[in-house]
Amino acid sequence: MPKPAASRSRSVSSPPLSPSKIDAKAARTRIAGWRAEFEERLAALVEIPTVSMDPTCRPAMDRAAAEAGRLLGELGARVDVIDTGGAPLVVGRVTRDPAFPTVTIYNHIDVQPADPAEWRTPPFTFTRDGDRYFARGATDDKGPALTAFYGARLALETDARVNVQFLWELEEEIGSPHFAAGLSKAIAAGLATDVVVVSDTIWTAAGCPSIPYGLRGLMGFTVTLETGAKDVHSGTTGGAARNPLTELADLIAACVDGRTGRVKIPGFYSGVRKLTAAERSGFARAGFSRRKFQAAHELSSLRPHPTDLRLMESIMAQPTFEVHGLVGGYAGPGIKTIVPHRAEAKLSTRLVPDQRPDRVFKLVKAFIKKRLPDARVEHEASLDPYLAPLGGPYNAAAVRAMRETFGREPGFTREGGSIGAVLTMRKLLGAPVIFMGLSLPEHGYHAINENYDWGQASGGMEMFCRFFHELAALPRPPGAGTPSRRSP
Amino acid sequence: MPKPAASRSRSVSSPPLSPSKIDAKAARTRIAGWRAEFEERLAALVEIPTVSMDPTCRPAMDRAAAEAGRLLGELGARVDVIDTGGAPLVVGRVTRDPAFPTVTIYNHIDVQPADPAEWRTPPFTFTRDGDRYFARGATDDKGPALTAFYGARLALETDARVNVQFLWELEEEIGSPHFAAGLSKAIAAGLATDVVVVSDTIWTAAGCPSIPYGLRGLMGFTVTLETGAKDVHSGTTGGAARNPLTELADLIAACVDGRTGRVKIPGFYSGVRKLTAAERSGFARAGFSRRKFQAAHELSSLRPHPTDLRLMESIMAQPTFEVHGLVGGYAGPGIKTIVPHRAEAKLSTRLVPDQRPDRVFKLVKAFIKKRLPDARVEHEASLDPYLAPLGGPYNAAAVRAMRETFGREPGFTREGGSIGAVLTMRKLLGAPVIFMGLSLPEHGYHAINENYDWGQASGGMEMFCRFFHELAALPRPPGAGTPSRRSP
Repeated sequence: MPKPAASRSRSVSSPPLSPSKIDAKAARTRIAGWRAEFEERLAALVEIPTVSMDPTCRPAMDRAAAEAGRLLGELGARVDVIDTGGAPLVVGRVTRDPAFPTVTIYNHIDVQPADPAEWRTPPFTFTRDGDRYFARGATDDKGPALTAFYGARLALETDARVNVQFLWELEEEIGSPHFAAGLSKAIAAGLATDVVVVSDTIWTAAGCPSIPYGLRGLMGFTVTLETGAKDVHSGTTGGAARNPLTELADLIAACVDGRTGRVKIPGFYSGVRKLTAAERSGFARAGFSRRKFQAAHELSSLRPHPTDLRLMESIMAQPTFEVHGLVGGYAGPGIKTIVPHRAEAKLSTRLVPDQRPDRVFKLVKAFIKKRLPDARVEHEASLDPYLAPLGGPYNAAAVRAMRETFGREPGFTREGGSIGAVLTMRKLLGAPVIFMGLSLPEHGYHAINENYDWGQASGGMEMFCRFFHELAALPRPPGAGTPSRRSP
Repeated sequence: MPKPAASRSRSVSSPPLSPSKIDAKAARTRIAGWRAEFEERLAALVEIPTVSMDPTCRPAMDRAAAEAGRLLGELGARVDVIDTGGAPLVVGRVTRDPAFPTVTIYNHIDVQPADPAEWRTPPFTFTRDGDRYFARGATDDKGPALTAFYGARLALETDARVNVQFLWELEEEIGSPHFAAGLSKAIAAGLATDVVVVSDTIWTAAGCPSIPYGLRGLMGFTVTLETGAKDVHSGTTGGAARNPLTELADLIAACVDGRTGRVKIPGFYSGVRKLTAAERSGFARAGFSRRKFQAAHELSSLRPHPTDLRLMESIMAQPTFEVHGLVGGYAGPGIKTIVPHRAEAKLSTRLVPDQRPDRVFKLVKAFIKKRLPDARVEHEASLDPYLAPLGGPYNAAAVRAMRETFGREPGFTREGGSIGAVLTMRKLLGAPVIFMGLSLPEHGYHAINENYDWGQASGGMEMFCRFFHELAALPRPPGAGTPSRRSP
């Protein structure tokens, strides 16, 4: 049962700010006052090791869902922890007035694995260093989730005329296998929205806000070659024994140019949509620079793209063929002169509109089987690429909220990564999806020493609050907020 | 101090057989009677984990040297455990009469690493299964070492007119880094020999004895490519970030044809000596068959060589370019969509006469640096290939000993592997080196479930005994037994 709207502002501890339009100075003071509490809560979230890839973390998933529910309950939300068949989906709904527009904020609170031996600080311990917060999940995506929570709190305190809903997933990092099932349950129980905000994306550079309007898709697979029952001696068998690592290296070289990354499989690029002039100018506005990109990701050199824009396009609007690992043979110090009997290549392609993962898998598999008939090619993951229109009132509202908060016109970019839940939400909720991310390249998505910072957190709270006020002022299109089970 | 010759036969527990010429039936009965004791002693040796690659095994090296010394002492040998600067070298000398020819048997009692998780039985526990003995080091080379010991015991009991010396190394598996130093010390202390017998080689097939007259050399190296400070997200960086695994795969494909193993580096084959007609007929006699080879090494398929002889040549008389491991990126289950920041290829080439490791390293390094200027190419190991004349009285003696023991004319083959100590002995002792190995392909050199068997052990004892008697009957060349510090 949702609590009546009137009681909701009482559930947050401090008195409301000015009831109608938000005042920047007051908002910033209010946000500054929340800092200690924010840090405490972020610590509580990141210290639950919600590694969705690791089956032993299942109890952590339930603990995190309970913690998330408790948190959202503080906002006065009706909370449902939905059994999806996998890890739970947490739904929080603050319904102030059915006549108000409804915004749904999507975040995920599961994380990538982390090897403590590689980190400077323990990955599942919250470590504050000045304005910076180190922990697995700090920026991807627990920090932004909590930022959106405080943005909503400020919007409700300042009487934004919106209903705010939260979707917090716990399986994003494994490709959202049960998200559609969970969301369908929530929709069956009455969940509907006018617009979805996804806050799980990365700015092009610090100080340069950007609004992505597309995502790359993914097709992950493994290629395994087994040529014997055990590793053999390279002296006694070398020359006669097939070497699966050498053969997989040959195969990879046939698939992709190692230096440029250009995929050599015939037909691979056939679905790739060309960038329009408008898209190029949106990209150009995003503040991308090779130098900053390289520094943020601690890369000592880059592939030889001729211009910064082309480099940016290679991440945002071009597909890839990536080798994630080549397993087999000897991995210890020095060399051990064996011929491995088995090798596995861990591979994926990032895909762009209008490539289709199923078609790409078929194409790649056929190419591989033709060259290496006894290799086993196994499909691991598929996500469609995503592309939204560049314009529209919601994007315009997001632009205004970002410009007012961060003092700079945001660029329009595409995200190089994939968020499976986006496609599902677009389809099942039938509402436009807007990306308002807060992560920075140097925060280290999926990397060691992942972090988030107070600058992005506090700015994000203000940005979300402004955006919710903007939404309240938009004319509602007829039929808005009605869920649709059809693909738009 | 060596004990006087007369007291020596008293140190073995049983009375001697017929004093002059050996009697096959009596010899076999005597050998059969030693079986339980042989197994007990082999168990004692293999249960000392003498993994020369593992620095933590150093105490095991000293224990093994002490055990070896105790054993050789039983034959009445003067034993010296020589400090080489690395693991010790055990020298045992049974000097019956300076007028007799002296034979020196080389074996090594260090072993390859072994991962217990991969073995059917614990690798450092002696496990007997019928006639077969499972343990790391069983066939490479503790079993053959102990076989030679019993062969010498039988020869001494049957009054073979030879002096028998033992060189048991503990660093063979790491390329014998201190063997030359240790051997020089032994020579300075008076070690000299007429002929060296190396028993660390493999027959072409069970039932088909063979005498190798050559060894492949080795040039091992690593190629490391580092393109950043940490693994990065293939969504947010993929397309722009260099992928060191993809680049190394490309490099490997440029160096070698994965399917055939043909090395593509220009000039690589320039030193390779062609086989003579006599060599080809020696090869043909060795009983090699693709089917048996494949079964012995548990290989499910082989490289596409047109004939069995060409397949055999690919192991014995052709060089290789082998990938032992490709380290970097993600190695866990499924895929993890990262771009690795560093990858290392563990590589080696087996070399044949007259290729030279230093020249090959230079050639390969230049080829790699031209394609990948920022790769680090590091030299790991070098061993020259080795080739002895096919004929001579010692080979003839070995042929007779093998034929009489095993009932079949041995083939003359080359060993695909490398034994660094051979080159050192040839140079420092100035004596011919004869290879009288006892291992079979199915014994699994360097592989999991390594084993040795009583058939090869008991046959080997008889073979060695016969060989020592044959040596006694050979005319001694003038100046024999004088060590030389010059390359012959």
